[in-house]
Amino acid sequence: MDITRDVLGEVLKSVRETTPLVHSITNYVTVHDVANIIIACGGSPIMSDEPDDVADLALICGGLNINIGTLNKRSIEAMEIAAEGAVKRGNPILLDPVGAGASRIRTETAQRLMKDFSITVVRGNISEILALADGSGSARGVDADVGDLVTTDNLERKADFAKAFALEHGIIVAITGAIDLVSDGRECYAVRNGSPRMGTITGSGCQLSGLMAAFLAANRGRYFEATVAALCTMGLAGEIAASRMLHYDGNSTYGNRLIDAVYNMTPYVLSRGAKFELCR
Amino acid sequence: MDITRDVLGEVLKSVRETTPLVHSITNYVTVHDVANIIIACGGSPIMSDEPDDVADLALICGGLNINIGTLNKRSIEAMEIAAEGAVKRGNPILLDPVGAGASRIRTETAQRLMKDFSITVVRGNISEILALADGSGSARGVDADVGDLVTTDNLERKADFAKAFALEHGIIVAITGAIDLVSDGRECYAVRNGSPRMGTITGSGCQLSGLMAAFLAANRGRYFEATVAALCTMGLAGEIAASRMLHYDGNSTYGNRLIDAVYNMTPYVLSRGAKFELCR
Amino acid sequence: MDITRDVLGEVLKSVRETTPLVHSITNYVTVHDVANIIIACGGSPIMSDEPDDVADLALICGGLNINIGTLNKRSIEAMEIAAEGAVKRGNPILLDPVGAGASRIRTETAQRLMKDFSITVVRGNISEILALADGSGSARGVDADVGDLVTTDNLERKADFAKAFALEHGIIVAITGAIDLVSDGRECYAVRNGSPRMGTITGSGCQLSGLMAAFLAANRGRYFEATVAALCTMGLAGEIAASRMLHYDGNSTYGNRLIDAVYNMTPYVLSRGAKFELCR
Repeated sequence: MDITRDVLGEVLKSVRETTPLVHSITNYVTVHDVANIIIACGGSPIMSDEPDDVADLALICGGLNINIGTLNKRSIEAMEIAAEGAVKRGNPILLDPVGAGASRIRTETAQRLMKDFSITVVRGNISEILALADGSGSARGVDADVGDLVTTDNLERKADFAKAFALEHGIIVAITGAIDLVSDGRECYAVRNGSPRMGTITGSGCQLSGLMAAFLAANRGRYFEATVAALCTMGLAGEIAASRMLHYDGNSTYGNRLIDAVYNMTPYVLSRGAKFELCR
Repeated sequence: MDITRDVLGEVLKSVRETTPLVHSITNYVTVHDVANIIIACGGSPIMSDEPDDVADLALICGGLNINIGTLNKRSIEAMEIAAEGAVKRGNPILLDPVGAGASRIRTETAQRLMKDFSITVVRGNISEILALADGSGSARGVDADVGDLVTTDNLERKADFAKAFALEHGIIVAITGAIDLVSDGRECYAVRNGSPRMGTITGSGCQLSGLMAAFLAANRGRYFEATVAALCTMGLAGEIAASRMLHYDGNSTYGNRLIDAVYNMTPYVLSRGAKFELCR
Repeated sequence: MDITRDVLGEVLKSVRETTPLVHSITNYVTVHDVANIIIACGGSPIMSDEPDDVADLALICGGLNINIGTLNKRSIEAMEIAAEGAVKRGNPILLDPVGAGASRIRTETAQRLMKDFSITVVRGNISEILALADGSGSARGVDADVGDLVTTDNLERKADFAKAFALEHGIIVAITGAIDLVSDGRECYAVRNGSPRMGTITGSGCQLSGLMAAFLAANRGRYFEATVAALCTMGLAGEIAASRMLHYDGNSTYGNRLIDAVYNMTPYVLSRGAKFELCR
């Protein structure tokens, strides 16, 4: 059954009404924005990467957001303990493989987490996902390589890749860029919300992952819908934020406007403004 | 002797005139805002959680702010070394037991610090303080449980609890929420400044703790007054920031406006705008 | 040959056109702003302080930014591995000795990095540089001691010190304050751009170091020019940001405006607005 506009609004409404507590193990570059966007969309954030702390947190949280952006040996251990706790409780897990392909430890950590734990959604740019698939991505730091990008011309081929990747790993994959692709292994949606401005700030991807984890935590049983809704919410917020920019504003102000726009997002605005389509 | 409005202004003036150097061992989520609010109120911030670094810093600092928000084994060791150094120099120590009650390591670390070192002020939400008192708090992550909250109806009973807690531990306790309570074990003040907007950003509590540590460092011999002044300053800044919000602003912009309002706070405005009363 | 205004614009243009990937090992207080200012000036940031990660990153990066603001034993190890990788690849290395003089581990780490690796530029305030020179700086936390400051009266003497320090260590030194000095051991420039507002936010120095590393990475073979251009860009952005402040704005808004101004800086505006002179 196709995802409807109304469902997207319901997904957001559910986040606002249940205030899911989301545990993030995330990088220290963008962690503040991740916390604020989780609040902005209706969730409640808690951060910790101490192994002795995270097992207890799993008992009170509704979702887990793992981001390997500034991973280290201690935080990797915490990721595994937290993932184990989340699986035990049946909580959704979002994995953001920041910089997979840029270093061996990043690629291997992300791949191991996917192998050892039941990950719900993997969200990354196309180069990161390619790196996880077969090492063919040409990661350039934390940004996608231009040769890998999803475009109108290669959409069908990329959608097939997304489906195959999701099916093989038993996950939902969200490949984000100018056009986002999201697949649960059977179907694939393309989401066309967003603004080029989102690439001018650090961590718009990390923020999306945090928001997505809150959407998943509040929407048990409809993770695919929640993932599409998260992509549309973030992209639409990016468009609204761009429309607020004055001529002397720059990327720092844009970052604030982006979170503000999520804060002010309503189910009605989301349902009306979402640009998504099933890839046939 | 009762605290007067003039004293609050004098406390702020003293921070501005002496620029106390405050060492914070704090979480990496809100650390940037903590640094900026310490500057905004008149202090000078330095952050470090490396055990080999903090002992030297104790020799040049005027106050210590310990926040267990993203504690780990290394930072816990640093907290102990820094606290020992602060005690030796007679410096005030502020303890913010973020998430006490949410995990064993958080609760136990905060309790051990209170037992082993002469802490000046403990500042937390009601659930965190209850967790430190007897484990009866129902922490929900880093937010207070709604059933624990201080209200007009239970004010007297909560004030008695605050007094007893402060007396037992030989500290000043600041329990923050819609109504703040602060007690030195003999008296208890209620502070009614603030805005619900403060709950829409991550780390307004962490920011308050940083600001409070600067107030303490600059006001030796009148720590109770400094604590009340810090609560009124932060709450009043929260009100001023809320009055600046436009219809499309959200929590990210509010966070900036909050620090801005502390930056522009004057002793005169503070004395006039403070809403505090002795609980009889 | 003297540095011309046109060269400054060309240096900035080169950053914008080549998008250099800059690896930062930096403190967790101001890391978000460092990432955003690197993007704002035209670079691409990646952060990591895990020893097992940084060696791989050196292979894809064009420059390295080492900032010891919240150093710890793990990050110090990562600094050494990353520096070794950068030297091997012939990449420029920027060292920001935050708080040198405030603790032994900070002073010694910065001195050891300068001894063991071919550092391109050392950027710090005058107290930090004095601490590295001979321990004569009176660091007060992370701020320069007022007795050390570069002024119009002592400019000649300070310029001589800068030249001698650069010559002895085979580096370019950038001593920043109300008047910046930059020397390659032969010549010394004074840069008079900037605003007192820059001292009201945490991390304007860290931001400058990040921006400078991007300028160096994009301008092989003209590191001295790139350093002067970075100082002028940051100072001029500080002036422009100050001109945008409304009466109720404070340091938090100023921080956003500063990065915004870098984002909107053009080679033309930089060439016209730069205030620099050769110290004869």
